[in-house]
Amino acid sequence: MRLIDEIHENRLLSTWAELLPRRPGQVGSIHETDAELIPLGDGRLLALTVDAVIEEIAAGIFHDPFTAGRTAVVSSLADLAAVGADPLGVLLSVTLPDGEPSVQERVAAGVGEACSLAGTYVLGGDTNEGSEHLEITEITVAAAGLVPEGEQLTRTGLQPGDRLYAAGLLGAGSAIAAAVLLDLPDSVYTEDDYRPPPRVKEGVCLRGIANACMDTSDGLIATLDQLARLNGVGIRVDNDPQALLDEGARRVSAATGLSAPVLLAGHHGEFELVFAVPPGRTGLLEAAAQAIDWTPIPVGEAAEGSGVSLAGHVVDTARIRNLLPEVGGDLEAYLAGLIALLSEEDA
Amino acid sequence: MRLIDEIHENRLLSTWAELLPRRPGQVGSIHETDAELIPLGDGRLLALTVDAVIEEIAAGIFHDPFTAGRTAVVSSLADLAAVGADPLGVLLSVTLPDGEPSVQERVAAGVGEACSLAGTYVLGGDTNEGSEHLEITEITVAAAGLVPEGEQLTRTGLQPGDRLYAAGLLGAGSAIAAAVLLDLPDSVYTEDDYRPPPRVKEGVCLRGIANACMDTSDGLIATLDQLARLNGVGIRVDNDPQALLDEGARRVSAATGLSAPVLLAGHHGEFELVFAVPPGRTGLLEAAAQAIDWTPIPVGEAAEGSGVSLAGHVVDTARIRNLLPEVGGDLEAYLAGLIALLSEEDA
Repeated sequence: MRLIDEIHENRLLSTWAELLPRRPGQVGSIHETDAELIPLGDGRLLALTVDAVIEEIAAGIFHDPFTAGRTAVVSSLADLAAVGADPLGVLLSVTLPDGEPSVQERVAAGVGEACSLAGTYVLGGDTNEGSEHLEITEITVAAAGLVPEGEQLTRTGLQPGDRLYAAGLLGAGSAIAAAVLLDLPDSVYTEDDYRPPPRVKEGVCLRGIANACMDTSDGLIATLDQLARLNGVGIRVDNDPQALLDEGARRVSAATGLSAPVLLAGHHGEFELVFAVPPGRTGLLEAAAQAIDWTPIPVGEAAEGSGVSLAGHVVDTARIRNLLPEVGGDLEAYLAGLIALLSEEDA
Repeated sequence: MRLIDEIHENRLLSTWAELLPRRPGQVGSIHETDAELIPLGDGRLLALTVDAVIEEIAAGIFHDPFTAGRTAVVSSLADLAAVGADPLGVLLSVTLPDGEPSVQERVAAGVGEACSLAGTYVLGGDTNEGSEHLEITEITVAAAGLVPEGEQLTRTGLQPGDRLYAAGLLGAGSAIAAAVLLDLPDSVYTEDDYRPPPRVKEGVCLRGIANACMDTSDGLIATLDQLARLNGVGIRVDNDPQALLDEGARRVSAATGLSAPVLLAGHHGEFELVFAVPPGRTGLLEAAAQAIDWTPIPVGEAAEGSGVSLAGHVVDTARIRNLLPEVGGDLEAYLAGLIALLSEEDA
C-alpha cells in the first residue's frame, strides 16, 4: 500500500483501519469502495456511508444552511451512487449553534430538495443544540442503500485501455471556493449556482457496465489519482480540460484567469461520478445512458504505468493532494500552491 | 401531539418531521422508535440510527477522546438495542481539530472497546481535519442492525399494569457531569468510572417479552416521561431511587449531598434500556435474563392517568426536561434549577 499511503488523507484512513478490526465478510478492502458493503445473506448488499459537511461551513464557503443541508445529502448519495446502490434513505445529525428556527428550516429545505431530486427520504436523525463552543452549523448525513451482490461498483477493476467518464461537468466545488476566496461578484458566481445533482439513477445505470467507479468529492484530480494508485495503472485525460468545466466554473475561469487544470485539481469536489468502461462496453453505456436521458462526459483513458496526465503533462498528484494539510488548511496558501504546481507542469 | 410537544426537544424533532416527508412503509411514527425501522421486504427490518457526541466534549465533561469514542458507539448501539436489533456494525464520522495522531488513537481505542464488548465492528467512516473554527474533537456514529419484522421493540405498547425495568443501574451520566461541574476529587469519581455498557444482547433478549423499550440517553426521568406521554399512561417509580443508582453515582451522591432523584433527573444519560413487561410475562423475562447472565433492575409500574412519580411525589417532568434549553445550556444554572425543582417536590 506504499502508493496509497503517499497521500495524507489515505494515511489517516489507513490508521483507522489498523486501529480497528474490519467486519468479516465486508466487501472490498479499505480505500476500495465509496460506501461500505455488507452482505445481507439473501443476495443483496447493504451499502452504508456517512459524510460530514463541516469544513466548508467553517471556512465560510457555504453561508446558506440550505447549501450545507443539500450538499451533505448529495455527498452521501454520491457514495451510494458510486457503488451502484438504490438508496433506502438518509439520516441527519445536525448541530444548530443557537437553536435558530430559520437555520433549521433552511437546512431542512436543502435536505428536502436533494432527497426529492434523488427520490429518497429522510428516515430520522439527531439534533444537537449548541453552546459557546459550537459556533457553526454542522451537518452529518448517513445514508443506506441496497445493491444486488455481484452488481456492486467498486474503485477497483480498472484495466489499461478502459475509457474514463464523468457523470457530469466538473469544477463546481472549486468555483464556489474561488468565488468566496477571491470575493467574486455575484454576476460571476453565487452560492445558488452551486447545486450539484445527486447521481443515484446514473450509479444504478452503471451496474454491469462500469469496471470501476468513484465520486469526485475531493475533485477530479484526486479521484483519478486514487483510481490510478488503487488499480496500478496510469490515467491520461485526453479531453480538453476546459471542456470538462461546467458553466459556473467556466465563468470563474474567465473572470479570474484560473486555469481549467487548477479548477479541476481543487480539493472541493462536486460529487459527480468518475467511472471506467472497457472499450467493448461503450456501446452498452451509450444505450443505457440514453434510456435515462443522461450524457456521460468523456474524460480520458487508462494505460499501463502510473500517474495522471492532463493536457499532455504529467501532474504531480501526490503534491497536489498533500498540499492542503501541508499549508495547515489555509485556503489562500492552498490556491497559490495549486497555481504554482500546475504552472510548473505547463513549463 | 400536545403532550409530546410540551417538551422542547420533542418540538425540535417534530419540526424536522413537518419539514421533511417521511418514507412510505417506515415502521413507527416520529418519536415512537429509538432507531429508524425500514422493511427490507423479506421479513426483516433494517434498523438505522445516528448519534453525535459533541455537547459533552464542548462542555468539558469528556476530556479523554477514549470516552468520547466509546460513548458515541455505546449511544448508537443503545438505539439499536432499544428496537431489539442485532447490530451489523457502525460507521464513524470524526473531526480531529489538529490532526493530532494521539487523539485519533484514543478515539479508536474507545470505539474499539465498545464494538468489542458488543461483538460488532466499525464498517467505515469519514474523517474531517480541523481549522481554527473547529476546536474540539467531534464524533458522530451511525449504526445499522437487523430485527425480524414483528419482533421489533418500540416506545409504544405500554399498558397500565405493566412493570417497568432498567437494563442496569443508573446515574452514570449525572455522576460524570457532577464530578466535572463540582470539581470532585478522583477518589469520588473519575472519567474512567464512566463506562456505560452496550446493551445489545439485552435488547435482543427482550424481543417478544417487552411491551415498550427506550434508552436512557437523556436520563431516567426524561425516558419515563417520554414513555408516559407517548402511551397516555402514568408511571410510578416504586423502587427506592437510591437503589437505582450505580456505585459511582452513589459515591457522588454521598460526597455532594445531591439526592438520588436529582441524579436520576439529570439529562446526561447512561444509555441503559428502560422497558415495560406485562405482569403475565415477568416470569418469561426472568428466565430469558438468567440465560444471558443479566439481572434487570425493577423500576416501577405503569398506571391509568399521566405523569411520573418518584418516591411518592409527582415530578414536574416537563419543567425538568425543558430546563436546559431554558437556562441556555448553562450547566451550573441547570443543576441549581434541578435541585430546586426536585426539593419543591419533597416539600
